[in-house]
Amino acid sequence: MLEANVYVRLKKTITDPQGLAIKHALDSLDYKDIEQVRVGKVITLRLDTKDKKTATRQIDEMSKKVLANPIIEDYSFDIKGE
Amino acid sequence: MLEANVYVRLKKTITDPQGLAIKHALDSLDYKDIEQVRVGKVITLRLDTKDKKTATRQIDEMSKKVLANPIIEDYSFDIKGE
Repeated sequence: MLEANVYVRLKKTITDPQGLAIKHALDSLDYKDIEQVRVGKVITLRLDTKDKKTATRQIDEMSKKVLANPIIEDYSFDIKGE
Repeated sequence: MLEANVYVRLKKTITDPQGLAIKHALDSLDYKDIEQVRVGKVITLRLDTKDKKTATRQIDEMSKKVLANPIIEDYSFDIKGE
């Protein structure tokens, strides 16, 4: 059993309205040190396999095809378990 | 400058329709090993401070008040930088 976390974030050059909204909310609550807020997704996949190598290849493929939109998003992932 | 990642996920007992939709999409693309997909948020905060202790306290507070809905979501976070 493997567990993978895929982190999908908007590319740095893309405006993040959700992040801006959160920043404004935090500003209005008097948190003064916040420079930037960006919101991304974390997709947790539980895989019924022990083959980490194949899993790595497949997750990279899935990320490109389904989980992230490569035009506006970057992704990264880690895999835990055995 | 500190950078914090806050991970907000639905509690295990809460149904995750977005995760189910992704699982179906991956099933239909013939990825057979996938047991479960859950979708959460990762909120990246850039803080203009070096005080990790205060930042930790504040981020915990923000998570409870703004970033997560404690009734249906769990959160965790890490802080990097100095």
